[in-house]
Amino acid sequence: MAQSLVIEALTAQAFADFGDVIEAHAGDGFGINQGFTWRHHKLATVSTYQANDDAIISIFSSKNRPTPIAINMMERHPLGSQAFMPLSDTPFLVVVAKAGPEPQLADLKAFVTNGKQGVNYGTGVWHHPLLILAPQQDFLVVDRAGDGNNLNEVMFSEGQCAQLDVTDLINNLTTNRE
Amino acid sequence: MAQSLVIEALTAQAFADFGDVIEAHAGDGFGINQGFTWRHHKLATVSTYQANDDAIISIFSSKNRPTPIAINMMERHPLGSQAFMPLSDTPFLVVVAKAGPEPQLADLKAFVTNGKQGVNYGTGVWHHPLLILAPQQDFLVVDRAGDGNNLNEVMFSEGQCAQLDVTDLINNLTTNRE
Repeated sequence: MAQSLVIEALTAQAFADFGDVIEAHAGDGFGINQGFTWRHHKLATVSTYQANDDAIISIFSSKNRPTPIAINMMERHPLGSQAFMPLSDTPFLVVVAKAGPEPQLADLKAFVTNGKQGVNYGTGVWHHPLLILAPQQDFLVVDRAGDGNNLNEVMFSEGQCAQLDVTDLINNLTTNRE
Repeated sequence: MAQSLVIEALTAQAFADFGDVIEAHAGDGFGINQGFTWRHHKLATVSTYQANDDAIISIFSSKNRPTPIAINMMERHPLGSQAFMPLSDTPFLVVVAKAGPEPQLADLKAFVTNGKQGVNYGTGVWHHPLLILAPQQDFLVVDRAGDGNNLNEVMFSEGQCAQLDVTDLINNLTTNRE
């Protein structure tokens, strides 16, 4: 039976080894536009590895997975960062392991966002593809385009698989929306 | 009395001289993540002018302005593009003029988004700072950071000012949310 991962609330401090949490905090920037806009400045920086790489903007439309959610692989982008910002205020899940050798089950960390937060995975940080709690959710994604292979995957053997028990999180979403 | 600008519905075709419309269309990308995500790929590219510039991610928290909305200045960023993606599904306004010499009143074009759309202003494209219809709205902003001055402004003389008549658009927002 797969081991259940503990799911922590996402904070910038807990996520520091993996990248940036994209969220506005009071006083974290400066006023612009004749006083009508507050710029929460530089919450994340897009990293690209090669001189001719581009930072590009895409929309990812995601569907939810069967529960409990099986974690049987991880991926990383060795040539650039990848940012995900939800386009609706609904929590989603983040499963990560530090940049470096292929992760083992014990290296995985799982987080749930507060609904407003986005994340920016650092270059080479292992992460699971999008894991959402709502039936569907869209994200603005800012990542890197250019020459070369920017995707590595690791597949876990069956005895090394993990799972996320998300029934309570999903039920809580429903309650909050009623 | 200021001249009222015609406000058009935003489309990629109408906006082609000014930058990209960031919106998902069916079939505009490819499936990823074991079939659980559709990537609407490369809807916009971040332009930076200098080799050491960064693409950065910020959140802009904007407040609405008195109506009719006065258009008495425009700005441009000569060293990079600037993308705005709304973090709530509410239309906002876009006022632009082509990159080049300081715009005159007759050069201005005004658009209203459909609530899902974002925009990416091309390098040097004249635009008015954020103009929202709701009392407040947040945007994810992807633009350029680096050395040098990346902001030019033009202030219009009083006889050259324009205005946006937005009462109907605001009333329509309210109706749609009831």
